[in-house]
Amino acid sequence: MSEPKDFSLACPIEIDRYPHVMLAHGGGGKLMHQLINQMFVPTFRIPTNCQHDAAAIDLPSTPGHPAARIAFTTDSYVVHPLFFPGGDIGSLAVNGTVNDLAMAGARPLYLSASFILEEGLPMSTLWQIVQSMQQAARIANVQIVTGDTKVVDRGKGDGIFINTAGVGIIESDLIIAPQSVQQGDAVLLNGDIGRHGMAIMAVREGLEFETVIASDTAPLADLVLKLLAAGLEIHILRDLTRGGLASALNEISLAANMGISIDENLIPVREDVQGACEILGFDPLYVANEGRFIAFVPQVQVETALQIMRSHPLGENACEIGRVTDNSSNLVTMRTSIGSTRIVDLLSGEQLPRIC
Amino acid sequence: MSEPKDFSLACPIEIDRYPHVMLAHGGGGKLMHQLINQMFVPTFRIPTNCQHDAAAIDLPSTPGHPAARIAFTTDSYVVHPLFFPGGDIGSLAVNGTVNDLAMAGARPLYLSASFILEEGLPMSTLWQIVQSMQQAARIANVQIVTGDTKVVDRGKGDGIFINTAGVGIIESDLIIAPQSVQQGDAVLLNGDIGRHGMAIMAVREGLEFETVIASDTAPLADLVLKLLAAGLEIHILRDLTRGGLASALNEISLAANMGISIDENLIPVREDVQGACEILGFDPLYVANEGRFIAFVPQVQVETALQIMRSHPLGENACEIGRVTDNSSNLVTMRTSIGSTRIVDLLSGEQLPRIC
Repeated sequence: MSEPKDFSLACPIEIDRYPHVMLAHGGGGKLMHQLINQMFVPTFRIPTNCQHDAAAIDLPSTPGHPAARIAFTTDSYVVHPLFFPGGDIGSLAVNGTVNDLAMAGARPLYLSASFILEEGLPMSTLWQIVQSMQQAARIANVQIVTGDTKVVDRGKGDGIFINTAGVGIIESDLIIAPQSVQQGDAVLLNGDIGRHGMAIMAVREGLEFETVIASDTAPLADLVLKLLAAGLEIHILRDLTRGGLASALNEISLAANMGISIDENLIPVREDVQGACEILGFDPLYVANEGRFIAFVPQVQVETALQIMRSHPLGENACEIGRVTDNSSNLVTMRTSIGSTRIVDLLSGEQLPRIC
Repeated sequence: MSEPKDFSLACPIEIDRYPHVMLAHGGGGKLMHQLINQMFVPTFRIPTNCQHDAAAIDLPSTPGHPAARIAFTTDSYVVHPLFFPGGDIGSLAVNGTVNDLAMAGARPLYLSASFILEEGLPMSTLWQIVQSMQQAARIANVQIVTGDTKVVDRGKGDGIFINTAGVGIIESDLIIAPQSVQQGDAVLLNGDIGRHGMAIMAVREGLEFETVIASDTAPLADLVLKLLAAGLEIHILRDLTRGGLASALNEISLAANMGISIDENLIPVREDVQGACEILGFDPLYVANEGRFIAFVPQVQVETALQIMRSHPLGENACEIGRVTDNSSNLVTMRTSIGSTRIVDLLSGEQLPRIC
């Protein structure tokens, strides 16, 4: 079974320019998209229905079992610090993967949990994280069914990294994907942005505010399934993790080849988060969230959708923040609070490394 | 959605004795089994049909889609060095997960690929590994459909760690699990043991032999599916990774509450592997393989099974190495080459860290 080990294809990333992996390659901005879209997607020949948070795949039919449609996703979590206000790497690893499944319109069912532990990690720390994972799984109504444990030598890891993969079942017949996005679609957001990233940064930088900024980490599947159960024609869903709202909108705009316009005045940002962003030099549009998502729906369904969102604990402050404007550009533009219009681009470098 | 973060349950691992995670907790021996069976399995309430290489799970039926049975598995790969004779971390990450699915009797379909990259990893190294993964996926007839990329700061990782999760479909109605094991079952092995571990160790220790010991890493699903297609009544399958043949037999013996007896003279070990083991002080029974498995079948089916195995490139040297003896003990015993009998136990410490 031996095969040639000399892979002669030229590296699709310009090696002269990027001879080494940089933090920005995992930061949610341009370099990460380049790595994914130029190296991983074409080499692995990843189908277009799989190039988002989760892959939507058909299981083949077998005798007595017609094909089922499932969602399958994976995420590794390397957040630093391991514990932060509102959560920890364990609850994050469960919620993040649950949310990736939810963004494919799937009902999350099963999770895997794979640990890369650094020699010397306190056993009590591991135990606390494991309990937190189970609590998060219980709240999200998913079952952890399989796992793996590796230990690396001291100095070759950073306490604990967790990978969770997830499987969910897609019960809706909608195609929740960029190609479904239509001109005039409303962009709905389920609440204020920027809390997760600022919660992490406040701990890292030792900042103290009058109030503690807690991460918004939460499982979004229940809310999304309620929207689907109401028969809403959801065109796309995206959670606002690495790269924040700005990156999610750019990804959709680019993939759908549509323009999107949003209004800064309509985007909720808590005062303490805004303050922390100003002190640390961040733009809340680019800050990671772990319990926030956008949904694109036809304009006529906005009221119904917002009503459902606002009656859910994770959507109390849901609002419409903009709309799909045209198919002549793939730009995201924003009417700012002072009335001007600016382009909201992908960031080039990393803004917040190891945020999730 | 905030919940108490004070998890008051006592840690199920004796913290006085094991205050920190040690390399042995990932080594495939007693400490790893203790961590899994005392902490992970009860806390996550992992069902008994999921406590092996892969979880066998039923998808719920949806309108027009009766329940399907799938296998779901995960493994993180931290092998050091990244490249070794016969393979690399990329091909290993694909084959290992394919094999975990195969051991559940599933046809592997879809894989995820999640990378934890260390800042500074040469881009060319990443490219080589990515190509190797794709080649391995092509050979194993699986599709990589989803992924994730994280980058950690220099000194907080070790070049590259890869997690692959996998989904396969279970077409057979057999229950391939310890509870199916019966007294008198034959233990079949698909070839010589110890090559993967010794290939890694030879590189690590800078040993040179007359011949290069190459890893046996290979995808086993095709061979297993041929056995199933022939209608053989396979009671259990297990691949011989961390902890090797000895650990796999112990796990089955313990879970099935059956004794197993094997014959050292019947277990193929290549001369160079035997020599390397002697130099480095390893017992081939405990050395990891990445293309070897055992299958338990009723004695009357041994000839058919061996015929199928031997006609496959990955089973040319397949053989019967022992049988299930009784249900009065759960000991693994071996008739040694000099005619005595010894107990083959799980190892206490790690034998070979970071072998996969």
